[in-house]
Amino acid sequence: MTQIVKPSTLPGFMELLPQDQILFNEMLDTIRRNYEKHGFLPIDTPAIEKSEVLLAKGGGETEKQIYRFQKGDTDMSLRFDLTVPLARYTVEHFHELSFPFRRYHIGKVYRGEKAQKGRFREFYQCDIDVIGNEKLAIENDAEMPVVIYHIFKELGFDNFTIRLNNRKILNGFYSELQIEDTVSVLRTVDKIDKIGKAAVKKELEENGVSSEAADRILEFISIDGSNKEIFEALEGLNVADEKFNEGLLELKKIVEFIEAYGVDEKNYKVDLKIARGLDYYTGTVYETTLDDYPKVGSVCSGGRYDNLANNYTDKKLPGVGISIGLSRLFYQLNEAKIIEAEKKSLVDVLVIPMDDQMIDAIKLVSELREKGVSIVLYTEQAKMGKKFKYADNLDIPYTIVVGEEEVKTKKYALKNMTTGDQEELSVDEIVEKLK
Amino acid sequence: MTQIVKPSTLPGFMELLPQDQILFNEMLDTIRRNYEKHGFLPIDTPAIEKSEVLLAKGGGETEKQIYRFQKGDTDMSLRFDLTVPLARYTVEHFHELSFPFRRYHIGKVYRGEKAQKGRFREFYQCDIDVIGNEKLAIENDAEMPVVIYHIFKELGFDNFTIRLNNRKILNGFYSELQIEDTVSVLRTVDKIDKIGKAAVKKELEENGVSSEAADRILEFISIDGSNKEIFEALEGLNVADEKFNEGLLELKKIVEFIEAYGVDEKNYKVDLKIARGLDYYTGTVYETTLDDYPKVGSVCSGGRYDNLANNYTDKKLPGVGISIGLSRLFYQLNEAKIIEAEKKSLVDVLVIPMDDQMIDAIKLVSELREKGVSIVLYTEQAKMGKKFKYADNLDIPYTIVVGEEEVKTKKYALKNMTTGDQEELSVDEIVEKLK
Repeated sequence: MTQIVKPSTLPGFMELLPQDQILFNEMLDTIRRNYEKHGFLPIDTPAIEKSEVLLAKGGGETEKQIYRFQKGDTDMSLRFDLTVPLARYTVEHFHELSFPFRRYHIGKVYRGEKAQKGRFREFYQCDIDVIGNEKLAIENDAEMPVVIYHIFKELGFDNFTIRLNNRKILNGFYSELQIEDTVSVLRTVDKIDKIGKAAVKKELEENGVSSEAADRILEFISIDGSNKEIFEALEGLNVADEKFNEGLLELKKIVEFIEAYGVDEKNYKVDLKIARGLDYYTGTVYETTLDDYPKVGSVCSGGRYDNLANNYTDKKLPGVGISIGLSRLFYQLNEAKIIEAEKKSLVDVLVIPMDDQMIDAIKLVSELREKGVSIVLYTEQAKMGKKFKYADNLDIPYTIVVGEEEVKTKKYALKNMTTGDQEELSVDEIVEKLK
Repeated sequence: MTQIVKPSTLPGFMELLPQDQILFNEMLDTIRRNYEKHGFLPIDTPAIEKSEVLLAKGGGETEKQIYRFQKGDTDMSLRFDLTVPLARYTVEHFHELSFPFRRYHIGKVYRGEKAQKGRFREFYQCDIDVIGNEKLAIENDAEMPVVIYHIFKELGFDNFTIRLNNRKILNGFYSELQIEDTVSVLRTVDKIDKIGKAAVKKELEENGVSSEAADRILEFISIDGSNKEIFEALEGLNVADEKFNEGLLELKKIVEFIEAYGVDEKNYKVDLKIARGLDYYTGTVYETTLDDYPKVGSVCSGGRYDNLANNYTDKKLPGVGISIGLSRLFYQLNEAKIIEAEKKSLVDVLVIPMDDQMIDAIKLVSELREKGVSIVLYTEQAKMGKKFKYADNLDIPYTIVVGEEEVKTKKYALKNMTTGDQEELSVDEIVEKLK
């Protein structure tokens, strides 16, 4: 007697039924198609890397969440993002790559986070980055929102906002105010939507910011309006700091380029509140939100960094990139019922042979497939009702029953499984109809 | 000063440069497209599973090779194939699936094998299976070679052979000879191409097979010829064993169905020497070889099994499936120089703006992309020669330099990077030309 083990997956690991997997794959394909259309090259790196390589940067949270293990003498870990592998790949293959190196990478990454709703321990990241050798022109920063724009349009969204900022503006501004602990100030400022202006001012002062500086900070983060208005307001601040003005110039250029790329004005916007990844990004930063579903949070983010790979090389490799966390996005769109439980099938027709017509049914299947129709042949002995139910369960839109008469006349009754309507059609007419 | 870690991957893990990755992805897409066209539904399971689930079957080699580790209290492992996850998935989601359950699964699996040339510790498997609830018609066994046929045709092969056999014929035959240790006999018989008839007979006798039985075995495994001739020879053996005749009948039916599916006669063949996975398969078995490259070995194999998931359920779930080990196949085709180092690019054109034409170049890029052309915009400051070299390095077939004149006349010089020829074309003419 075989011992029965209860079959189940680990908590925090997403697994979909085929009908959902079809929708998931469709989103993934849309992302990939757009990455390729915009001239990004594919790479695929091992999910397992040497721990010393993956953890070269060190650091708290990452190290706690990583899946790390020993096999023989080897200390190995599952990758927790696609950026560290990109850094390793770029340096390892440096002399075989052409710069700017534009790559896309779609793959699973692993984080042993506390399991909670909508957080996954294995999830897909879909990343693009452009890596320069020593330097990288600002035009590349402008291309990221263009790719995001086309992806979310094709995913069926109209109302989304790609938010842009530049870390140099923030850093320069705070440097001018002689605030040293920018990180703590940014953390406080980040709460403004939650706790309001007065509370932010109070917290800033508690952290040693002067009342005047706190007022300037509040003035600064209150700047809003059209992109043009924001630029005018920033210029109106009369900040002398060099970084500030460099960042402002970059942001203005990027907006000019994005406009030239024909991105709809309503889908991008300078937003001085975006700060992202405080210690990693050094220039442009991006966040993308779905206007109709604010709770979903940022669905695509990224930015510019000065140095991709300083743990692996002395070479300076500046880059800019974005990432879509597809598993989480899919889960959230599903939860928010944005992805309609649309009945989708990869199969066009279920062919059901009568008892003695298997060979003829196979010939029909073969002929239709040859002409590009996706078909399942029903192979089992069962009552007719069960056979039709199979098509219904799989959301297959059409069925054809193949009997003696059909074989003789070469006309087949194509049954629409939604309406129940039937049409007598030849093979070519069926192909035409299903196109 | 940041400490520099030498960036490298673990031994036994495949990683490709972008140009090779493009070819790899093309093969993967061909496989996937054919799986979908033949009505298989996608699934994607976690790479990490509970160890008790993955190892429910137990067994030596598997357990040694598995990547198994502990995180918190959880004992987990990386999957070593896609069959065990399919079994787990089918039972776990049993009531939400429709049977026959036709699924495809393309994903990475992990085996900590001894690293050697052409063996990988992480590799892609591309599987299809059809799973029945309690029973599954033999027509499904006939569909596997049809899918294999279309995939290898589309991959550009003409000379390949899908070899078919049925374990019941083997088992029935040996049962009639009252040979109990079939496994040992099959192992000996498997060596015939290497060691010859006489040595096989000797080894059989050493293992307790009578001289008469050994002669019958040699007669049996010498049966060859056209499928029809093989069937006649098998009938001529006058074996009374029920299993033998059941297997023979199944094989004859399958060949009849494959013929009806229009598979070219030269690409499939009954081969009584195929035995595969001695303890797993119970009926039809498949192996596929490339006629011009015998050293590559089987490139796609599989078979019929009585019971997919007896470690997880009392239900009987018979199935039939095939698997393509894509990483290994790609490596071998590459080594054998079957995959030409064909210069392939996903990008059609590199657009190179003159100094003051960035905005106009961006508008051109945007317009061409809108019309389906895949473009990279050259963004960096560099000498002209370096810019053209970038196109060459990435095998981008065309370049367009955008200067003042081009912007004025709306005619762009499309340069063929292979021939060096240039043509002055409008945007629409460029699109037409690149189609």
